[in-house]
Amino acid sequence: MSDPLELTLCEAADAARSGKIGAVELLEAALAAVARRDGAINAVIATEPERALAEARALDALPAHRRGILHGVPLAHKDMFHRAGEVSTYGVAARKGHRMQATSPLLGRLDEAGAVSFARLNMAAFAMGPTGHNPDFGRCRNPFAPDRITGGSSSGSGAAVAARLAYGALGSDTGGSVRLPAACCGVVGLKPTQGLLSLDEVMGLSESLDCPGPVARSSRDLARMMDVLARPGHEAAVAQDLRGLRLGLPTSYYCDDLHPEVQANFDRAAKVFCALGATLVPVDVPDHSAYADLADAIWKPEAAALHLPALQSGTGALPEQARARLMQGLATSAVDYVRARRLRSLALDDMLSGPLAACDALLVPAMRRPVPLAAEVEANSGDAMRRNLAAITAFTRPLNYLGLPGLVTPSGLDCAGVPMAVQLIAAPRQEPLLLRLGHGFETETGFNRLRPETLG
Amino acid sequence: MSDPLELTLCEAADAARSGKIGAVELLEAALAAVARRDGAINAVIATEPERALAEARALDALPAHRRGILHGVPLAHKDMFHRAGEVSTYGVAARKGHRMQATSPLLGRLDEAGAVSFARLNMAAFAMGPTGHNPDFGRCRNPFAPDRITGGSSSGSGAAVAARLAYGALGSDTGGSVRLPAACCGVVGLKPTQGLLSLDEVMGLSESLDCPGPVARSSRDLARMMDVLARPGHEAAVAQDLRGLRLGLPTSYYCDDLHPEVQANFDRAAKVFCALGATLVPVDVPDHSAYADLADAIWKPEAAALHLPALQSGTGALPEQARARLMQGLATSAVDYVRARRLRSLALDDMLSGPLAACDALLVPAMRRPVPLAAEVEANSGDAMRRNLAAITAFTRPLNYLGLPGLVTPSGLDCAGVPMAVQLIAAPRQEPLLLRLGHGFETETGFNRLRPETLG
Repeated sequence: MSDPLELTLCEAADAARSGKIGAVELLEAALAAVARRDGAINAVIATEPERALAEARALDALPAHRRGILHGVPLAHKDMFHRAGEVSTYGVAARKGHRMQATSPLLGRLDEAGAVSFARLNMAAFAMGPTGHNPDFGRCRNPFAPDRITGGSSSGSGAAVAARLAYGALGSDTGGSVRLPAACCGVVGLKPTQGLLSLDEVMGLSESLDCPGPVARSSRDLARMMDVLARPGHEAAVAQDLRGLRLGLPTSYYCDDLHPEVQANFDRAAKVFCALGATLVPVDVPDHSAYADLADAIWKPEAAALHLPALQSGTGALPEQARARLMQGLATSAVDYVRARRLRSLALDDMLSGPLAACDALLVPAMRRPVPLAAEVEANSGDAMRRNLAAITAFTRPLNYLGLPGLVTPSGLDCAGVPMAVQLIAAPRQEPLLLRLGHGFETETGFNRLRPETLG
Repeated sequence: MSDPLELTLCEAADAARSGKIGAVELLEAALAAVARRDGAINAVIATEPERALAEARALDALPAHRRGILHGVPLAHKDMFHRAGEVSTYGVAARKGHRMQATSPLLGRLDEAGAVSFARLNMAAFAMGPTGHNPDFGRCRNPFAPDRITGGSSSGSGAAVAARLAYGALGSDTGGSVRLPAACCGVVGLKPTQGLLSLDEVMGLSESLDCPGPVARSSRDLARMMDVLARPGHEAAVAQDLRGLRLGLPTSYYCDDLHPEVQANFDRAAKVFCALGATLVPVDVPDHSAYADLADAIWKPEAAALHLPALQSGTGALPEQARARLMQGLATSAVDYVRARRLRSLALDDMLSGPLAACDALLVPAMRRPVPLAAEVEANSGDAMRRNLAAITAFTRPLNYLGLPGLVTPSGLDCAGVPMAVQLIAAPRQEPLLLRLGHGFETETGFNRLRPETLG
């Protein structure tokens, strides 16, 4: 085989478990892929070849019966998951000397299952920003079209998986930060139910909304990761077909102001689910437009409280865009914060007793518009930038406010050859159902197997 | 027997279970006590004789083996515990027509155990105020000395139990509101661990700090109530003596600025515990003076968010003192609120790894000074009023911030013949230990059996 990175995560793990390929061989292929391809992508902040090689050698020495379900699989993660003794930059160069004291339980679970976490990935500084820009480490570039954004803040997680630098990656999603990079880079991303995955030893942004989640090249690969990160049962669920499932198509908010190309792409995706045996159900969705402001009233003060020393030490300690957003957090009143948190459970009740009672999952576009050019969302492009950013995050942010799980999966390419995506939304803890829907769609369409031409 | 209300709660329950006295007889005695004595005390907002009599008759008809551990015991509660179809005034006359839709699970548990909740008790308007003043229903008066405060906000709970109008009462404690009325009125009050007792269908003030708790005339009576309100095991725990327990005497904060009479009373109480076999241990306590401001940063905005419509509808919708406090809540920043909540768990860690690791429980005075005259804490007495209020709540408020349980039990009378009290503090869920300590002290001293002379 020319490049083992062309295997899926599940294929690579199963080949390594059965001894057809070695963990060291997989790791060396991943390191070679980074060396060969990341110059054009800029998804990787640093690789950790020595520790990773030692781990891979130890895995190769394990007898078959002790090999885990991620045996030998090279993974790379957004640079905010702590590992004892190693650096986490949080996307900020000034933190290059900060070594962490403990290891994230999520990394620990991946380790135990045999994964080899070998690289730390680019991200928006302190995870604030949905585009992939980073003033310290440089902009992460979309493997499908380097002049387009990758989405953020887990920019490197989306780009590295799309560019076949790693089989899967952890990101974290406070307003779309896992789902947007997956959508922009043509891979699959899951924001699990709020609270399902541990936030311990992960950089905090907003304790109420932060949600770690995985990115991979298929729902089956994500299911394998979720079996490790959460509990077994996800990969088993994807084996079921989609017959009899009721898929809700919102008649409000998620169908408003769609770019014509997004609308057409979405209509085709819905027809695919119908052909796969799902019943399409029109559902009224409560107006989610207020949730952006309510989520702002929660995350901005929570983040400002975390970054208070930097805010008080004057300009320079924080990237200018981050600083501007956190200053708004300083101005938020406690009453608005308390009310936004109280309304959250009422809003969730509305969703569960309304649309999510009428169907098993909702199908919506991942974004209102096609993936923008990086130049369209530069920090200095003013009102147009703000409009573009709002259009990017309009369909992802409500799920963080509601605490609901969402899966983003590719739905084809736009006329510029850049990925488009749909988002599936379900009730709390329904990740297995979301992965089953994603797997059915991916198997039928193959949109998740489209390769960026830039890979050569 | 002349007045069954002179029995303890446990004695009354046991007599009723064994048929020596009827539930109707106990209830009629309680209603007669209210009619005879409450004119001087003003602890009762309303009795509910019809429902209560129907309940008592049904209880009398129960065979012995179906009688609960509170069988036939007349109780009365702060007027903020909802019962379906009945009024809860929250201490505000304008709410006299508001009938509630559901019943507090705490009232439900008392009902199931055979208690007869027959009266709704005076309280500070919306539970804001530690003195016992109430502009709508009139000031609740201390049964030991009508010109002294009862403490608040559960003023009626302390006064009704002290005046033998009921065997026990529920109150709620957001900064001392159960413990202060118990301390001022010479009865026993427990603020349980934060979260132990349900807040469902109880008037909200501050969801982070609110804590329902019982008042009775002894720790054994409280233990019987806690066996019903929480889980069995409290009454069994009070049977153990105090030998071998380590009782911590703080060397900071809780010994600062004590009135000489409080100091002397406290020293005598400590000697009693020593004579009972407890080991006295001096312990350093982290400075708790900052916790008042941190608690303010939490409860004021939470309460302001609850009362926002009334705040926005101009003066008159809220008592003036409550309004002034809530306006401060409107001015609190979300960052200060978020930080105060985060610091809370660090502060608890400090207590658990420091003083509460060095001893089984802390012994402190309940208040810095003797019970004030009502005139000393009138709303219009300016700075002196504020100083007096701060001295009243200085030793109770830290426990709400920390979420720790605290028991207040009488420690004698001051030179004016007004009750004094000590407070026992332990780690989360150590209510059985606190009740055991209280029971030992009460059995030895009899301070909880001192009768107000005003009862005649």
